[in-house]
Amino acid sequence: MEIKHRKVNKRVRITDKNHLPLANQEVGIHQKDHAFLFGCGAFDFIPYVMKGGESWQEITDKWLEIFNYATLPFYWGGYEPEEGKPNKDKLMKAAQYLVGKGVRVKGHPLCWHTECADWLMQYDNATILKKQLERIDREVAGFKGVIDMWDVINEVVIMPVFDKYDNAVTRICREKGRVGLIKEVFTRAHECNPDAVLILNDFNTSINYEILIDGCLNAGVPVSAIGIQSHQHQGYWGKEKLLEVLDRFSHFGLPIHFTENTLISGEIMPSHIVDLNDWQVEQWPTTPEGEERQAREIEEMYRILFSHPLVQAITTWDFKDGAWLKAPSGYLREDNSRKPSYDMLKNLVKHEWWTDTTVKTDENGWTEVEAFKGKYRITSGEMLTEVSFTDDKEETIMIGSM
Amino acid sequence: MEIKHRKVNKRVRITDKNHLPLANQEVGIHQKDHAFLFGCGAFDFIPYVMKGGESWQEITDKWLEIFNYATLPFYWGGYEPEEGKPNKDKLMKAAQYLVGKGVRVKGHPLCWHTECADWLMQYDNATILKKQLERIDREVAGFKGVIDMWDVINEVVIMPVFDKYDNAVTRICREKGRVGLIKEVFTRAHECNPDAVLILNDFNTSINYEILIDGCLNAGVPVSAIGIQSHQHQGYWGKEKLLEVLDRFSHFGLPIHFTENTLISGEIMPSHIVDLNDWQVEQWPTTPEGEERQAREIEEMYRILFSHPLVQAITTWDFKDGAWLKAPSGYLREDNSRKPSYDMLKNLVKHEWWTDTTVKTDENGWTEVEAFKGKYRITSGEMLTEVSFTDDKEETIMIGSM
Repeated sequence: MEIKHRKVNKRVRITDKNHLPLANQEVGIHQKDHAFLFGCGAFDFIPYVMKGGESWQEITDKWLEIFNYATLPFYWGGYEPEEGKPNKDKLMKAAQYLVGKGVRVKGHPLCWHTECADWLMQYDNATILKKQLERIDREVAGFKGVIDMWDVINEVVIMPVFDKYDNAVTRICREKGRVGLIKEVFTRAHECNPDAVLILNDFNTSINYEILIDGCLNAGVPVSAIGIQSHQHQGYWGKEKLLEVLDRFSHFGLPIHFTENTLISGEIMPSHIVDLNDWQVEQWPTTPEGEERQAREIEEMYRILFSHPLVQAITTWDFKDGAWLKAPSGYLREDNSRKPSYDMLKNLVKHEWWTDTTVKTDENGWTEVEAFKGKYRITSGEMLTEVSFTDDKEETIMIGSM
Repeated sequence: MEIKHRKVNKRVRITDKNHLPLANQEVGIHQKDHAFLFGCGAFDFIPYVMKGGESWQEITDKWLEIFNYATLPFYWGGYEPEEGKPNKDKLMKAAQYLVGKGVRVKGHPLCWHTECADWLMQYDNATILKKQLERIDREVAGFKGVIDMWDVINEVVIMPVFDKYDNAVTRICREKGRVGLIKEVFTRAHECNPDAVLILNDFNTSINYEILIDGCLNAGVPVSAIGIQSHQHQGYWGKEKLLEVLDRFSHFGLPIHFTENTLISGEIMPSHIVDLNDWQVEQWPTTPEGEERQAREIEEMYRILFSHPLVQAITTWDFKDGAWLKAPSGYLREDNSRKPSYDMLKNLVKHEWWTDTTVKTDENGWTEVEAFKGKYRITSGEMLTEVSFTDDKEETIMIGSM
């Protein structure tokens, strides 16, 4: 699979701080970060920053060895269980900790019918919408500079027909229509942070979602990226479906984020289950064969997605087994030990798709660099600097003692 | 079922041409036409106006006994089989004949992937779109005043994924997206005739079509009415589905047109057929039991639709058996004889839902009128006039010798 688009291939000229070329020198090209977003659910960072502890430390440190992109939970019901008393502090602490580690953070989600705040239901629809938009103001503006990526609205295809229980967001979606509500929430989020990456997110990958996106874009909704969930508790989609989904959602020319990926290392959930939340089990063990299969499937999937030019992010949903649905869906087992999938992915992200090399400059300080897009430390003897490689344009890099 | 919204209930004052009240007079209230659009495919008017003949005369006269709303075919492939040589004359003749009989005419359709012009495929997509828009210019402007209602675009839900054969319209829909193409063609049609009724038409009544409409409205597409096809060759939808469809498509608050209704009086097409056009049979006879069933089903359906306030039009697709798919789908048998469905519908439209009565004015010329919305001839002795009853506002009607 072709991944040339993930790399720069360029001539660079290395000079010292006096603009003099570093002629005939060994220069180290050491990758520090990926441009690609290798993401994972980072809910575990909240207990870690709040109470610490060895186990949480172990989990989060292992997380940081692979990932550069974190999803933090902003479910309204959990974030603001009592009206007017949001849990801002713990989310801010977790987000700031991650940002301090060089991780980009996404908030998930700003509007959703599930895990919604029950107290909203006492209000009429106009008031619910007003509070929904004020909530967006508060979070998007309040976390600006720390969190500049948001799953703005979640699972809109089913939102107005969701009938498992009454909730405030389904009510306003019924009244305003899908595109009408999407437009309101995106417009508000965009006003609060015009530079934010704003994602529309859905598990529905049918024609419904294509038409919804089409409508949104024609209605001028500021969608930055198309979010596609891929919880595969019922079995790996496989290459064919993955390519077919990529093909259909590429038509819009927008970046694609795989926002919620799950591949499990245990028994597959029966296919007759429609809403995954209906599968309630006592235990869902990981198995040795399941772990081999999980690693293989994740590897194939990541390779396919990494080779598609429009995919900008892949986020695995659970870092550790036993989170959502008790599924063996993580890279770590419940005892925090690493599964084969962990080592496989770390090898991809930090070795096979990672550039750490030495080049030699010519008599004018020029050299050729082929490197994965991302952040680099450039060194020569005692001298160093940090740069980002984003494209194939020639450039001059000035390095010096720091 | 409640049909109060189909009637006016009002006080009117009858005067003579000198503004003197017609006191204590008998006044005739004679309905001439419905405000509701009782429609039918009127393709048979083309051979009639072109070559006449007793059989065509019989068919079209029987048509005119019931219907006030005609669909004429503007399939691009048939309308302009050779580029630059459209069949305008015969369509104009048929349309003018119908208008002369007091019938409103709709053109069907301006853009569709099926029955498209093959010669378009020699062009690149930009040229195809240009020619599509020019075609809309030509027809909408060219027939303005005669045809002021259009099915602008047909079956867009499947348009970009239609893969039975290559065609020019699927190509441009793939490139522009569904809402993008809808917006182009509606905007152009609206520019050519700002007063025209512009209909979006589809057989897909799933959530797909809801989302598509939602997207179009939010994107500012000038949709006048939602068109719903209901070809029921595979069996009558039944009351429950009909009410469910009406409920879902009422959310937009737009008028709803049942644009292509079929209920057959023969054997039902097997349910495994997905594209009705795949059902190719030598013969598809009408049967006595089938005819009773057809009449019953049409009656139930028309009563349900007539009772829904947003429904403005019901069009039966085939007037006579043996047209599309050779189906026994008409009100007339192949020998032009009337089926039970014909008499049933004529009774509904021209008797049960029709007002022809006499009222008596008081000493000031006032009287109460309860009448189905539509056009009326008001008579008193030798005096008469024509009026439209559209609402419950009090009005003065002046009559005189004509």
